[in-house]
Amino acid sequence: MTDGRSLKVALLGCGVVGSQVARLMTTHAADLAARVGAPVELAGIAVRRPGRLREGVLSELVTTDAQGLVSRPDVDVVVEVIGGIEPARSLISTAFENGASVVTANKALLAEDGPSLYAAADKYGADLYFEAAVAGAIPLLRPLRESLAGDSVNRVLGIVNGTTNFILDRMDSSGAGYYEALEEATALGYAEADPTADVEGFDAAAKAAILAGIAFHTRVRLDDVHREGITEVTASDIASARRMGCTVKLLAICERAADGRSVTARVHPAMIPLTHPLASVREAYNAVFVEADAAGSLMFYGQGAGGVPTASAILGDLVAACRNKVSGARGPGESAYTMLPVSPMGDVVTRYHISLDVADKPGVLSQVAAVFADNGVSIDTVRQQGKDGEASLVVVTHRAPDAALTATVETLRGLDTVRGVASIMRVEGE
Amino acid sequence: MTDGRSLKVALLGCGVVGSQVARLMTTHAADLAARVGAPVELAGIAVRRPGRLREGVLSELVTTDAQGLVSRPDVDVVVEVIGGIEPARSLISTAFENGASVVTANKALLAEDGPSLYAAADKYGADLYFEAAVAGAIPLLRPLRESLAGDSVNRVLGIVNGTTNFILDRMDSSGAGYYEALEEATALGYAEADPTADVEGFDAAAKAAILAGIAFHTRVRLDDVHREGITEVTASDIASARRMGCTVKLLAICERAADGRSVTARVHPAMIPLTHPLASVREAYNAVFVEADAAGSLMFYGQGAGGVPTASAILGDLVAACRNKVSGARGPGESAYTMLPVSPMGDVVTRYHISLDVADKPGVLSQVAAVFADNGVSIDTVRQQGKDGEASLVVVTHRAPDAALTATVETLRGLDTVRGVASIMRVEGE
Repeated sequence: MTDGRSLKVALLGCGVVGSQVARLMTTHAADLAARVGAPVELAGIAVRRPGRLREGVLSELVTTDAQGLVSRPDVDVVVEVIGGIEPARSLISTAFENGASVVTANKALLAEDGPSLYAAADKYGADLYFEAAVAGAIPLLRPLRESLAGDSVNRVLGIVNGTTNFILDRMDSSGAGYYEALEEATALGYAEADPTADVEGFDAAAKAAILAGIAFHTRVRLDDVHREGITEVTASDIASARRMGCTVKLLAICERAADGRSVTARVHPAMIPLTHPLASVREAYNAVFVEADAAGSLMFYGQGAGGVPTASAILGDLVAACRNKVSGARGPGESAYTMLPVSPMGDVVTRYHISLDVADKPGVLSQVAAVFADNGVSIDTVRQQGKDGEASLVVVTHRAPDAALTATVETLRGLDTVRGVASIMRVEGE
Repeated sequence: MTDGRSLKVALLGCGVVGSQVARLMTTHAADLAARVGAPVELAGIAVRRPGRLREGVLSELVTTDAQGLVSRPDVDVVVEVIGGIEPARSLISTAFENGASVVTANKALLAEDGPSLYAAADKYGADLYFEAAVAGAIPLLRPLRESLAGDSVNRVLGIVNGTTNFILDRMDSSGAGYYEALEEATALGYAEADPTADVEGFDAAAKAAILAGIAFHTRVRLDDVHREGITEVTASDIASARRMGCTVKLLAICERAADGRSVTARVHPAMIPLTHPLASVREAYNAVFVEADAAGSLMFYGQGAGGVPTASAILGDLVAACRNKVSGARGPGESAYTMLPVSPMGDVVTRYHISLDVADKPGVLSQVAAVFADNGVSIDTVRQQGKDGEASLVVVTHRAPDAALTATVETLRGLDTVRGVASIMRVEGE
């Protein structure tokens, strides 16, 4: 309990997000005090390079000694927005040892080491909040952890990376190729100079790990998440999707198996019907669909990144952590009681859209169809187009285990009559 | 604290929602126990007519003595799904006096008497949760109260009544008139035998009062909410909306005034552009847009009614109330520290779509335009159509105070050249 004194907050990192946290804490100080029940003060701001401070940040609070800041006995809550594994992990550990609660946006650390963080929070009677780690400003983790606490979540399907959604949206609306769209995203500040974490799906995979763990009350690590990025998505894939009444999105999908005994988590580009609500999520917006036994389908939509929206999520968590400090209460800890195992990608049941370049002669279709049948994969539709002795076959399958679909494609690649597999993409959202 | 014993829940009401609460508490008992940290048991179910029990309800728990049930000293949480003001209010009071926390879906009672309920909960150290009172299964109140606790909400704009959305959606998609669409809604179970509470906007107005109070940290009563239902919406209004690239929705709109010094809350049909995300909310679904300073635009979408989805929201609250009982913590109480006054409808700034039957002769348009100008209302577009000496004028205004728009319409009614005002509808969502 804090016995009426003000609460002290240590801010680690003062970049795009941190500077907005500092600004909002100052401009909203009166509201925060009213909502927490005590004044909330910035005790210090740890930065690596004090010379690069943003306008409006209180320079007298700035220090380069982050370890010293989190060790201060008067700090009640530590807000960590440095990102990455170290030194964030060590600083958070020290904060907990010191009895401080932690609010973090660090998806990489949570996906790698969430259970240890929860355990440390628990050991020292502190709280761990991280709404900002997934889908920025969108209230998503709190509803999953708390509002749906009496329900059973079966599926989470979402657009959780704004950079890739911006790129795919541009490819879809302008017919641009991947590199052209990436260039535009970079110029507009939606993609970083090194876009690997976004375009290769690492960022979305970390979020999928966090979402799956919370949704299914189990533990899912980054390594458990099947990950494919968008660098191989072509203008022709997008055009094929259009012909099917679909668009292409990078989706994070967490599912409970039909028998309820395992879960899967994956990130990959997929075609979804234009009628699906996620299809209309434009630019850098995020949206997440949640399917629960009793609640049915829910959707959460908003800005998934950016300094100000992310700071909103952090301040929401900060109010919760401070309120708990004031009342002596504790926020929710880890809920991993189901301990459901994570199945490999091969077990995921999905649909494939496969585009093949084939010889334009009789019998090819029947030969190709036999490969699908041999692998137990049922075909939904086939479109055949021929010109000058070459033809293309576009096959859309019914639902089948990913392993069977992969095996089918492997066998197709070995056929003499198949000149090449032009593209493979999963179809979701029905 | 409960010291490891199981938690006892009294259920008041066992209709469409209550029977699902009882069912889910039984089927999800193991999950609930794991999430709460102690077993959660039904202690009793109070009904008015025991003969009308639904299948699967444990008949040995049923009683007609609701007052006796909530007075039992072993009851930890009371779930109230009777609805209406009395006897719900008295039963909830007794529950609090008895130290029990209350989970309710009772929007009417909350809109009428929320502050007294909060005060009683506070006095006896109990919790009051009511996620299910607004937008059924959609996690909305918890995100507003907690996730956005560090932000400043400026506007809440939503479809919060499934019955009227179903009716308007049918009118829009089939061209049906209001009564025809109402009949279909009744036949399909979306409208009650007496649909007044839904179609006259009372249900949505109670929800708007609750939303406005929470969003702006103030108190808004049902009487403060301007209310218009959908009974006067015609097939021709819907057709006019279509011609403007709009559709008609019954919206609940809560706004903070531009100067931040007052709030407004209102429920009325309005035209919204087809490109607005709320326009694509079909059938009996609900969706709520929230605009906050830092978070930007957020949308929450899902099923707004029905026994099973509503029971999901109640169970989420039940888990929170039980967890608090186990840990000795308290949930959030009333936050009404801004005490912002509620301004009347006349102060609301909005746009009108007005359809007039006028004499088809020179000078009419200039006469009509002068009335708008005299009232300080600027015209956005005018469409004029004449036939057989009669003409219709469709005027869409720019944004202006509702009082000025109302005064304009009143003056227009008095003009000799205006034969009648065929329809007036507000335009929102830009």
